[in-house]
Amino acid sequence: MEKQFGTVAIIGLGLIGSSIARAVRKSHPYIRLEGYDLAAEVRDQARQLDLLDQVREVADEAVSGANLVIFCVPIGAMEALTRSLSAGIGKDAIVSDVGSSKSFVSSILRRNMPRARIVPAHPVAGSEKSGPQAGSSDLFEGRWCILTPDEHTTPEDVGHVSLFWRSLGAKVKVMSPEQHDLILAAISHVPHLLASSAVAAVTALERKHEHPFMEFSAGGFRDFTRIAAANSALWKDIFLTNKEAIAQVCSMFRSVSEQLEQLIATGDEAGLLQELNQARQARLDLNVDNKQG
Amino acid sequence: MEKQFGTVAIIGLGLIGSSIARAVRKSHPYIRLEGYDLAAEVRDQARQLDLLDQVREVADEAVSGANLVIFCVPIGAMEALTRSLSAGIGKDAIVSDVGSSKSFVSSILRRNMPRARIVPAHPVAGSEKSGPQAGSSDLFEGRWCILTPDEHTTPEDVGHVSLFWRSLGAKVKVMSPEQHDLILAAISHVPHLLASSAVAAVTALERKHEHPFMEFSAGGFRDFTRIAAANSALWKDIFLTNKEAIAQVCSMFRSVSEQLEQLIATGDEAGLLQELNQARQARLDLNVDNKQG
Repeated sequence: MEKQFGTVAIIGLGLIGSSIARAVRKSHPYIRLEGYDLAAEVRDQARQLDLLDQVREVADEAVSGANLVIFCVPIGAMEALTRSLSAGIGKDAIVSDVGSSKSFVSSILRRNMPRARIVPAHPVAGSEKSGPQAGSSDLFEGRWCILTPDEHTTPEDVGHVSLFWRSLGAKVKVMSPEQHDLILAAISHVPHLLASSAVAAVTALERKHEHPFMEFSAGGFRDFTRIAAANSALWKDIFLTNKEAIAQVCSMFRSVSEQLEQLIATGDEAGLLQELNQARQARLDLNVDNKQG
Repeated sequence: MEKQFGTVAIIGLGLIGSSIARAVRKSHPYIRLEGYDLAAEVRDQARQLDLLDQVREVADEAVSGANLVIFCVPIGAMEALTRSLSAGIGKDAIVSDVGSSKSFVSSILRRNMPRARIVPAHPVAGSEKSGPQAGSSDLFEGRWCILTPDEHTTPEDVGHVSLFWRSLGAKVKVMSPEQHDLILAAISHVPHLLASSAVAAVTALERKHEHPFMEFSAGGFRDFTRIAAANSALWKDIFLTNKEAIAQVCSMFRSVSEQLEQLIATGDEAGLLQELNQARQARLDLNVDNKQG
């Protein structure tokens, strides 16, 4: 690992970027870590936390000597940053990212860096928190990192990036960007949309009935409000860059939920119990470690 | 408290009933606790855990000398139990319950015990766990207990039951059964329905695409699967006994979520950001203690 990636540049030092820095420091103390963030405040915080060997004021200086460049910026910042850094990245460097919408991000990377060794990636780990202070060296421990190579990506480069993420504790899966986007729409983007919609609906009911509702919540709905409290700008970009898959999953959700509502409205006890048992069984099949929630 | 309720009978010794027993033991060691459960296995577990002074084989024996009788059984068991125990409960005893659908349960109590001193209650505290082992003496600490008196309930009896729940650590609110049912539909029943529907939709997508989706989940969707894993029989009864309020909340949810989907489909960045920020603000306004989630 040290040999392949003597220097790793992390562009964007928020939750994910700073967690990669921490995890690399822990697992590979001899890898040189270069970093940059668009926000001066975040650069200062990263310096104070001493997460990298060097936090640069100019992004080009961070990437120029790097063997692996990882873009950890919001999806909305990818276009401008990859275009401006394209010339400065070494021709043998591998370029990767951590974006949540792979078709969209991959096409930006490929368009702006047509000759680069690109291996798009998405570590499926996160938190409602953000910023370099919120990062953690074990954020990726036991989590999936999904790699979505395109037709120009070589198997060797997939192997290098795969080994990198495994060394940070992640499990790695390789699939197409389209498959990734549909799966993430189903298990992340649409659930987030539902939670935000539920919170907004309860707010509307409070206004309509001029009575507090939300303060009586416990358990399940508290989870919904926690999800809805995540960074709105980040999620707006995720939603807008994965429209088709989100629409497809919303349509499936709607047909299932309307069926459940119908079973309730008609008082179909047996049918309702069967549907609830199936959803319950899905969780049991997951065999989730309780600590992981 | 000891004076008003020298003996408390708890009918149903699952999560809620056993937690009431534990909390009474802790706060009021001189109150005599009588108990009964329909399941022999649960009665045995309650005896082994030594939660009450006496766990009876016959429900009538548990209630005959009680000053306060609390029904902590699934909603579906209320009709038969209240009918069979009606004659055995002392005429000065206060009768209460912990059911999640107040209009439905109140009408059963009033119909089967027309002359009883009835104070319907719902402690809004719970867990996906069940059974007497899962109970805890601080389950109600800082949680709401909603009392829904009907036109025959006296203010004095509301005061007695209110004091009882406050002494177990709960905050008490008094409202109509209809208001309770709408609020609970919004903050509990419909969110549960959405989580179950989302899990069922992902299961359907997995079958359609012959590919695992759920194993890649982290964070938000894990919360959904945890919610969906709750006791299906209990939730079936809750859904079927609060149909009207659930339909009303589902309709509001649908109009909000379709608006969000529309903003995504049309690429309305500003509108989408505004909606997400409003849902986010609702959580911040809640000012939730992180420990309570």
